[in-house]
Amino acid sequence: MVTVSIINVTSYTGLELLRALSQHPQFVVTSVTGRSAAGERIDSIFPQLCATTLAMGQTTPAIDPSLILTEEPAQTDLAFVCLPHAAAAEMAAHLLERGTKVVDLSADFRLHDVATYEQWYKHTHPVPALLESAVYGLCELHRERIRTASLIANPGCHATTSILALAPALAAGIIGPDVIIDSKTGISGAGRSLTLSSHYAEANEDTSAYSVSGHRHLPEITQELEEAALAGGHPIEGGLRLTFLPHLLPMTRGILATCYANLQPGQRLPDADNVRNIYKEYYADEPFVHVVDTPPHTKWSYGSNHCFIHPFIDTRTQRLVVLSCLDNLVKGAAGQAVQNANLLYGFSETAGLSSLGVNP
Amino acid sequence: MVTVSIINVTSYTGLELLRALSQHPQFVVTSVTGRSAAGERIDSIFPQLCATTLAMGQTTPAIDPSLILTEEPAQTDLAFVCLPHAAAAEMAAHLLERGTKVVDLSADFRLHDVATYEQWYKHTHPVPALLESAVYGLCELHRERIRTASLIANPGCHATTSILALAPALAAGIIGPDVIIDSKTGISGAGRSLTLSSHYAEANEDTSAYSVSGHRHLPEITQELEEAALAGGHPIEGGLRLTFLPHLLPMTRGILATCYANLQPGQRLPDADNVRNIYKEYYADEPFVHVVDTPPHTKWSYGSNHCFIHPFIDTRTQRLVVLSCLDNLVKGAAGQAVQNANLLYGFSETAGLSSLGVNP
Amino acid sequence: MVTVSIINVTSYTGLELLRALSQHPQFVVTSVTGRSAAGERIDSIFPQLCATTLAMGQTTPAIDPSLILTEEPAQTDLAFVCLPHAAAAEMAAHLLERGTKVVDLSADFRLHDVATYEQWYKHTHPVPALLESAVYGLCELHRERIRTASLIANPGCHATTSILALAPALAAGIIGPDVIIDSKTGISGAGRSLTLSSHYAEANEDTSAYSVSGHRHLPEITQELEEAALAGGHPIEGGLRLTFLPHLLPMTRGILATCYANLQPGQRLPDADNVRNIYKEYYADEPFVHVVDTPPHTKWSYGSNHCFIHPFIDTRTQRLVVLSCLDNLVKGAAGQAVQNANLLYGFSETAGLSSLGVNP
Amino acid sequence: MVTVSIINVTSYTGLELLRALSQHPQFVVTSVTGRSAAGERIDSIFPQLCATTLAMGQTTPAIDPSLILTEEPAQTDLAFVCLPHAAAAEMAAHLLERGTKVVDLSADFRLHDVATYEQWYKHTHPVPALLESAVYGLCELHRERIRTASLIANPGCHATTSILALAPALAAGIIGPDVIIDSKTGISGAGRSLTLSSHYAEANEDTSAYSVSGHRHLPEITQELEEAALAGGHPIEGGLRLTFLPHLLPMTRGILATCYANLQPGQRLPDADNVRNIYKEYYADEPFVHVVDTPPHTKWSYGSNHCFIHPFIDTRTQRLVVLSCLDNLVKGAAGQAVQNANLLYGFSETAGLSSLGVNP
Repeated sequence: MVTVSIINVTSYTGLELLRALSQHPQFVVTSVTGRSAAGERIDSIFPQLCATTLAMGQTTPAIDPSLILTEEPAQTDLAFVCLPHAAAAEMAAHLLERGTKVVDLSADFRLHDVATYEQWYKHTHPVPALLESAVYGLCELHRERIRTASLIANPGCHATTSILALAPALAAGIIGPDVIIDSKTGISGAGRSLTLSSHYAEANEDTSAYSVSGHRHLPEITQELEEAALAGGHPIEGGLRLTFLPHLLPMTRGILATCYANLQPGQRLPDADNVRNIYKEYYADEPFVHVVDTPPHTKWSYGSNHCFIHPFIDTRTQRLVVLSCLDNLVKGAAGQAVQNANLLYGFSETAGLSSLGVNP
Repeated sequence: MVTVSIINVTSYTGLELLRALSQHPQFVVTSVTGRSAAGERIDSIFPQLCATTLAMGQTTPAIDPSLILTEEPAQTDLAFVCLPHAAAAEMAAHLLERGTKVVDLSADFRLHDVATYEQWYKHTHPVPALLESAVYGLCELHRERIRTASLIANPGCHATTSILALAPALAAGIIGPDVIIDSKTGISGAGRSLTLSSHYAEANEDTSAYSVSGHRHLPEITQELEEAALAGGHPIEGGLRLTFLPHLLPMTRGILATCYANLQPGQRLPDADNVRNIYKEYYADEPFVHVVDTPPHTKWSYGSNHCFIHPFIDTRTQRLVVLSCLDNLVKGAAGQAVQNANLLYGFSETAGLSSLGVNP
Repeated sequence: MVTVSIINVTSYTGLELLRALSQHPQFVVTSVTGRSAAGERIDSIFPQLCATTLAMGQTTPAIDPSLILTEEPAQTDLAFVCLPHAAAAEMAAHLLERGTKVVDLSADFRLHDVATYEQWYKHTHPVPALLESAVYGLCELHRERIRTASLIANPGCHATTSILALAPALAAGIIGPDVIIDSKTGISGAGRSLTLSSHYAEANEDTSAYSVSGHRHLPEITQELEEAALAGGHPIEGGLRLTFLPHLLPMTRGILATCYANLQPGQRLPDADNVRNIYKEYYADEPFVHVVDTPPHTKWSYGSNHCFIHPFIDTRTQRLVVLSCLDNLVKGAAGQAVQNANLLYGFSETAGLSSLGVNP
Repeated sequence: MVTVSIINVTSYTGLELLRALSQHPQFVVTSVTGRSAAGERIDSIFPQLCATTLAMGQTTPAIDPSLILTEEPAQTDLAFVCLPHAAAAEMAAHLLERGTKVVDLSADFRLHDVATYEQWYKHTHPVPALLESAVYGLCELHRERIRTASLIANPGCHATTSILALAPALAAGIIGPDVIIDSKTGISGAGRSLTLSSHYAEANEDTSAYSVSGHRHLPEITQELEEAALAGGHPIEGGLRLTFLPHLLPMTRGILATCYANLQPGQRLPDADNVRNIYKEYYADEPFVHVVDTPPHTKWSYGSNHCFIHPFIDTRTQRLVVLSCLDNLVKGAAGQAVQNANLLYGFSETAGLSSLGVNP
């Protein structure tokens, strides 16, 4: 048994971690924190937890609904940190010091370059020294480094969707540096804090673009895609010229990234079959990334850790278009965090994550 | 391993069975039928099945996405029948003859009285002789009889919600025979067949009552509640006087039944605590029925087999009000069917069904 | 031209008043207040107001998008007060003193009996002396008294739906005093203030009951229905025994009240035709209340001031069931307020309110 | 009074025409057709029409709910044709012959080039001779030609949104020929015919791209944008290289087009202010197109004929991004058809169309 704490469990990523871990045979949640609700039982915050039952392979329930929230986490082997940025870094440093492995769901350790971080997040990084050892927790790209890490920077939801969409094409050198990502997300990505834009009567039957002057997932997408291109032997001269624009959709869960790039002639332009094969090979053994033959639906991934990708060519303009979708709270957050934790402990990578999406 | 067929897998109950069974350690789906799609692979109907992975406790995948749909089912140990009524009865008879156990998700074997069946379903019952041996598959009420049955009549979604809501009160004799059930259901209950009332632009941002001249779940609710009253030692003289009115809500999944009845003075009127205790005792050891202290939300059960019940008293009028909710496709259909199958084979009752609802 | 102020225009009822008045040929909004946004232009709060154009019959736009919000209202002929209760009463008193007619959208002047008010609203009424002259602004029941009033208490949204549903039956004496109203409302009724229950990710794909220990619209429904019964010559001995339970639905607009009552034998039980005729006569000349022959859809009323009512008999139990629906922000709030204002000034009752519901 | 027929009134564009015309002071609908429902009253198809009341400026109701649907239209001054393509062209030819002016909501007369039409619509054009006199009914671009036409080709919903978004930039010559349009539409655009993709349980909580091999609005967008560039004195050498990809969103109404193009250096690159001014001048006197300073919301236009446009510059990449939104059934279909009809008859361009969007 590996003991686990969830820091700031009252968030949506906290709740989603509880759901995934409730099915996990090896992790047991022994500590949950949440400042505003310290002293309360966890099932007074989330009454649906009264339904927790023993899952296959469990001898103890992974989640005890009568667990009391505290301000400070108890000592555990592993911690999932669901705090806002800055607060997350401080907590992670504290936990690492006392020997706890950390999967941090904030943005604090995602960017290798502290200056870039400070430019986009508008504050001084509390523990820049940790950036070097942190591993960007996109399992499909950094699986080996994750296994031996102590601090995992769990990727952003938009970032996961977009990087998985474009890494194969950039690694294969079939597209140029001009990339447009039009991302569409459900509203749960905005979290459990109340805002007018996530107020039901405002958000329902509405769509709009947001963060038009620059969304914070842009630098991590850029960093990872440039690395993937380099790793594939096709470094991007002068860097990616990326426009990334997120849109809010009237649904709770799901992200669909539509990615546009010009095909880059090698000896000759790749055709649809070439592209499909490049993608299928890149993700050949992945349990959670599926290259599909028709435009994917976000709903296929609803409540699951799966990502569906469909690359195709706009033959009139010789552009590559890649559609990529997943559940922002699962593969885009808590599910990926558990996948990272499974790698950290050498468990089956799908443990706790084997369910299909809830459809219809 | 127990081999399983799903008859008419292209329905929503068929899809939901696939999802539940994909997590099951002992059932393996070896045959799927669907007239209009015979000859196609199952993942061409439901592309999301490409994501099937080994779940905890499985050595073989329970679902093979490359399975081909046929017109006639192959021989299996167990069959789930997802056909419309009448067609279901004929198929069930055929399967039983060749030694297959049957969980029938239609209404064909739910009513003990063939005349009542024929009055409500407007056709002659194809195999009335089977009615006697069929067991109404509401596990919480008929667990022991289910274990030894060959033919299970899986209850209707409204019926499950309403019967679970009122059985404890009737068994305890604390309410009279005048009962009003105002039921509210998501749209997936109408199935995968196309109708104007389930057309998105019609159903979204809309609510309405339907089946105002009498919904077909009414007789099974009446039958089971009268039986529950009798079993509790409080038979209803003259029978239940039940008004049952369903409403369509703009959501995919979920049923909420709001049940109203007059408190029946025994020696004295029960109070809120009495009522709560009666309910908690009635469902004391149930893994899937939870008596809760606040009004439950349908979303708590989203994608799970759990039912949440909140009884309270309207003290101004001395009426009992019971709120009961569940996911119409899971505890209201496919999940309950798997729960029944678990009982039939002596497996853990929660096998394949241990996940929590997807929240938010 | 009649000058109009909207007090607390930043609410949803404020916004809806702006929309209705934008089509009105005789009212001109000259003052808008909103404490938190004082000093801002109204189109910085509601950018969509930039689209205001001249409507038929207007020589001046009824709404000037560059109007500045103030803390205190300027002098106008008429004021719509959209403040929370208690604050509303104080503002109304102040406005009446300076000669402004008032349509108050809060609950402060709806109940004739100050004790009942104080019991349900848990505070001392600021100006009980005004209760006597206030008229309950349900136009269909109190049209003549509204024409000559200075202070109109605009009814609650649930109350409007339910009273219109049951007044004809009680006035005709065809039902007894035991009444159950199961009301279902969209989320905009909760207003523009942020709460967890109106947070999109919580409310979407969910339904639940609320205010289970007693909703504040209950006493006004009781008061008005008892009055309607009396006015029809069928006073209710011992008073109405009303259970009223509201439910939250995942949609922005719309209320559907499902009302259940036992038919009361007069010389003989009324049948479906009798009932329909009683309703059609009661609302024979009403421009906004329509007795229809099929179960109505809330969407029919989306964005319009119309109410659709369908009474029918559950012949198995001899209960009357009445379905009644409308748009909670229009006929349930701002539209009815404009209808009241039209009566106050002798304008066409449908002025500003002639549009059909937005369908699909 | 101008008499009007609606051909195939049982469509969503038919219903939306009824709603707009119900507020119109000069048009009277005297004939409605619909093959499958011929012989029925129009309010048996759309029961909500029972609520039709006299609008401001009307002496006769524009819509008579008791109107009977016929197979063939009666003689009227004007006809709105809501048939599918091909059938529409034949009907239009027939109506024009008998002296009726036609606003055709299909695609049959939108493309000047018959070969392009036949390539995209996969059938022979029934009446190619009419293409020359038909005017593309985008009022903002072709107002003067519309006034004197007999046959108006009402633009597609995606096309209207996208052309209005990009025409000013192309006319001003500030962007190059490489254009990507990522369009997002609500589901009502798919019409009232039943399909799996518009089945509620499939579409709700889902998003996906569609028509990935080429959507039929692409050629009309190309045609009109190239014309607009030419009209502005900045013809596009070699033609537009347009990728247009539509996405289905879980909402009933609304289109948001997100358009990406590289800024084209003239003497120097335009900045945000230049761009905003170019757009504000281009639409300076338009009653229905509004250049706004923040990202627009589709909901602002809900049920109204208004279009909101927000151009901005991605300064990291020097790309122009334009957000454009409207209600697909109003400005994207029926509202624009009425706007065209107003121009045809010299009525106020906003007659029947003056209402604001329904918000929230």
